[in-house]
Amino acid sequence: MTTPTNPRFNHTKYRAFPRVTLDDRQWPSNALSKAPLWCSVDLRDGNQALIDPMTVEQKKQMWALLVRMGFKEIEIGFPSASQPDFDFTRWLIEARQIPEDVTVQVLVQARDELIERTYEALRGVRRAVVHVYNSTSPVQRNKVFGLEKSGIIDIARKGATKVMEESKKFPETEWVFQYSPESFSSTEVDFATEVCNAVIDVWQPTPENKTIINLPATVESAMPNVFADQVEWFCRNVDKRDCITVSIHTHNDRGCAVAAAELALLAGADRIEGTLLGNGERTGNMDIVTMAMNLYSQGIDPELDISIADDIIATVEECTNIKTHPRHPWLGELVYTAFSGSHQDAIRKCLAQQSEEEHWDVAYLPIDPQDIGRTYQSVIRVNSQSGKGGASYIVEQALGVTLPRWMQIELAQHIQSASEREARELSSDEIVAIFRQAFMPRGGHYELSGYQTEHDSLHHTIQATLNDGQNLITLHGKGSGSISAFGDALHKTTGLDLQVVQFEEVSLGEGSDAQAMAFVQISLQGQRFTAAAQDGDTLAASLESIVTALNIAISQGVKAA
Amino acid sequence: MTTPTNPRFNHTKYRAFPRVTLDDRQWPSNALSKAPLWCSVDLRDGNQALIDPMTVEQKKQMWALLVRMGFKEIEIGFPSASQPDFDFTRWLIEARQIPEDVTVQVLVQARDELIERTYEALRGVRRAVVHVYNSTSPVQRNKVFGLEKSGIIDIARKGATKVMEESKKFPETEWVFQYSPESFSSTEVDFATEVCNAVIDVWQPTPENKTIINLPATVESAMPNVFADQVEWFCRNVDKRDCITVSIHTHNDRGCAVAAAELALLAGADRIEGTLLGNGERTGNMDIVTMAMNLYSQGIDPELDISIADDIIATVEECTNIKTHPRHPWLGELVYTAFSGSHQDAIRKCLAQQSEEEHWDVAYLPIDPQDIGRTYQSVIRVNSQSGKGGASYIVEQALGVTLPRWMQIELAQHIQSASEREARELSSDEIVAIFRQAFMPRGGHYELSGYQTEHDSLHHTIQATLNDGQNLITLHGKGSGSISAFGDALHKTTGLDLQVVQFEEVSLGEGSDAQAMAFVQISLQGQRFTAAAQDGDTLAASLESIVTALNIAISQGVKAA
Repeated sequence: MTTPTNPRFNHTKYRAFPRVTLDDRQWPSNALSKAPLWCSVDLRDGNQALIDPMTVEQKKQMWALLVRMGFKEIEIGFPSASQPDFDFTRWLIEARQIPEDVTVQVLVQARDELIERTYEALRGVRRAVVHVYNSTSPVQRNKVFGLEKSGIIDIARKGATKVMEESKKFPETEWVFQYSPESFSSTEVDFATEVCNAVIDVWQPTPENKTIINLPATVESAMPNVFADQVEWFCRNVDKRDCITVSIHTHNDRGCAVAAAELALLAGADRIEGTLLGNGERTGNMDIVTMAMNLYSQGIDPELDISIADDIIATVEECTNIKTHPRHPWLGELVYTAFSGSHQDAIRKCLAQQSEEEHWDVAYLPIDPQDIGRTYQSVIRVNSQSGKGGASYIVEQALGVTLPRWMQIELAQHIQSASEREARELSSDEIVAIFRQAFMPRGGHYELSGYQTEHDSLHHTIQATLNDGQNLITLHGKGSGSISAFGDALHKTTGLDLQVVQFEEVSLGEGSDAQAMAFVQISLQGQRFTAAAQDGDTLAASLESIVTALNIAISQGVKAA
Repeated sequence: MTTPTNPRFNHTKYRAFPRVTLDDRQWPSNALSKAPLWCSVDLRDGNQALIDPMTVEQKKQMWALLVRMGFKEIEIGFPSASQPDFDFTRWLIEARQIPEDVTVQVLVQARDELIERTYEALRGVRRAVVHVYNSTSPVQRNKVFGLEKSGIIDIARKGATKVMEESKKFPETEWVFQYSPESFSSTEVDFATEVCNAVIDVWQPTPENKTIINLPATVESAMPNVFADQVEWFCRNVDKRDCITVSIHTHNDRGCAVAAAELALLAGADRIEGTLLGNGERTGNMDIVTMAMNLYSQGIDPELDISIADDIIATVEECTNIKTHPRHPWLGELVYTAFSGSHQDAIRKCLAQQSEEEHWDVAYLPIDPQDIGRTYQSVIRVNSQSGKGGASYIVEQALGVTLPRWMQIELAQHIQSASEREARELSSDEIVAIFRQAFMPRGGHYELSGYQTEHDSLHHTIQATLNDGQNLITLHGKGSGSISAFGDALHKTTGLDLQVVQFEEVSLGEGSDAQAMAFVQISLQGQRFTAAAQDGDTLAASLESIVTALNIAISQGVKAA
């Protein structure tokens, strides 16, 4: 045991979590192939953890969302302990709000008067899960209840008996019993199993009428692999395994609630309790949205509809008054956003090659953001750390063309300077404006007023007219093509030695109305200038791009010889 | 393959992640016993993922925090690609900001001109890690770079060679080389190992001069156990294992970045790259604070100081402009808060029994919140879902006494009604005010003006004077004690049949100046009324509590017969 550097921050106050011996564990070789049974506990565990618990109106909103997403089991509260939960339960039943294929679940401590009141709350429901629990961990036994193990088993057995007896008074309802050894993960696994076996002995479930045994990590205390070992040990040692549904209920104290629940599924569990976006006591419950999307992204039907992501976020935020973190897995505002230039570049290339027939395979995008209603506009965002890819993507989206690589590099330099100068992210509109200002400035020294071209088998000749604001200047030149002829004409008239270094022209849209966009880089007195121009005619666009590049050069101080 | 219910939400677009075969894996039986080597990438991966990357001033703040927390390796940027990163690197070196025991690390792509510029940025540094990377995954090879495997190995080998050659120009610095096969977790593990072996072959590390091989889950694509298998496979197959430090760099796309990194440590890794509170590309990097606290809570020295939690939160929020989620593991505002009554009750009982000599063992509190500068006031918070424990705890803290159990139940009913009526959390002040209003109301019908008592071997007699605002009423009574004598006196004078059902008195503080607090529950005409009173004298407090209970009864309509 090492001595702490900072005496106020003393790790020796704590001890390693004991683990079960399971050298022949099987779960690490298993893989998930289908969704678990889901049970939302948003209206119970989520609700009781809120600074301001949900109003009746908010509960109705949450309920509607959960049903719409496809939950078939929904824990709706603790009606014996809370009058609002009791009233909400009655409303669901009396206002016939529970669809045929949805089962409500309510929580109750293993105490007679609370169990009686619970059944009163559920009177008339078609089908319901009565979820009874008591605490089993050493700290609860020794410090909270002052009971031996036998006393804990007694509470569980009596509670289970009361739950079963009381249910017989309401034969019109299809009852399902659920038992949780609270703080399962902090309980000796053999004792937790013993307690559950006592309950199973009372309830006598069958393969047709299963009992749910729910294993909570009420506080996440150990690594997820340790929890998986506990669950596998439990599944291998519990009585009547074929007559019980093993349910998992993890919390996120160590930031591993989803991992622990996933590994528990490998270890044999059938069912997952959790909440939307992980609301719940302290660090929250296991986030069902994350696990469902994890399955989805691996080609497994999650059996929940997360495509309505924005509705999920809106309702959860409205009901919990907690904002969704921008980096929340799968649904956060920034999670499909690439700021890094190399990431942006890779995304662009992969998207261009992605076909509908093939499996999704795009670098840095684990799923298609459109599946959850996000557009690609939120994917590529540009800050001072971005390279050429992102800004180009935005300009390309705005103009409807693909930029040549040399143009992307030019653009990236302009964007990086602007972004560093502003010390902030640039919006898409700002990036397009920077592109236009840098490469398509209006009102330069020269304007192309008109031109005529001819070509024979040897060369192209051009006659063009420039307007410098005062005079019309007529140029004549020839070359191997119209563009080189225009360069020749400029040289003869202005004395400038203008070389076209790079040139590329693309069409915007299709058909005879298509516009042309020309990109050019010229060399002039040892410097390079880059410009673009758009026109209904391809040659006009070409010539205008060269005139624009010349204008940029003049505006930067290049003078005719 | 199942057909999706919602065609817009089509899981069949995706496929299961392939996994390495490792049937004799060892990691699930391993346990953590010490902290890994930590490397913060807040100033690089964290920074490049921000909507507004950090200003120089913010970088200085973040740097100061990281050093103060005890980081010995800090990645400071990508100086060859970003002028602000270059300038910050120069400032650290020229302004002598790097402590003797801290090593800076910079990232660079495997390209010659960038590597040259990187060494320029580092000129004069005492010791530095040059971290070179290239992409190795199939999607990067096939869709982004259009290269065969051999071409990827070539880039890595050439980059490694350039890094080594260039370092020789700066012999005054102690250089450490680091290589990352980017997207390691999405690369065939045998090919990733082959690439790393090529780099190791170039660098020829020794046990004394190790090379760092960093294994990124650039995008988290698989379950954490699959990643651990990859890492164990790598550690068992890489060349010169004793000459390399195996580093892990996970992202949080599946919400399992911490779990994956922890399991990777079990699988043989030595070093963890991550950020404070998990800032980083998309869903963020592995959160080092969470992993450090996970170790701490298991009695392992994290070798980082998280006791300054509020400073960590303040600096991260200032530098990233992202608010910390209230349920963020270990540091969020709500993570030590118990709203549930049964949780509050258990916490109170455990805290009362916790001794300094024993290991921490408190239900629902995995660590002592005081370790990270949190008070217990933030632990117990009361809403309409809370039972008796929480409100009692708050009143007990305010008054400095322990409430009798029957008083707790009375209080809880008042609190629950108030909380349901307000549909919101009640503050500590409001709870104390509700207690005082309910049980210690001022200005009732009667006021105790004075009293005299006598007792002999048989019984106590009392003469007391009540003031009803108009007259002074003198009472006489006798009983087995002063309190029963007072009851007797009241009965004789007012005709009310007053029984003391519950009574308890405790002293506030110690010594002769101590105040007494009396709690009483009386029965009057079939109803029960509860009150409390405080006085410097124990008997006065007792009598006043009974008069207060009587006043409460009268205010609720009880009349003398």
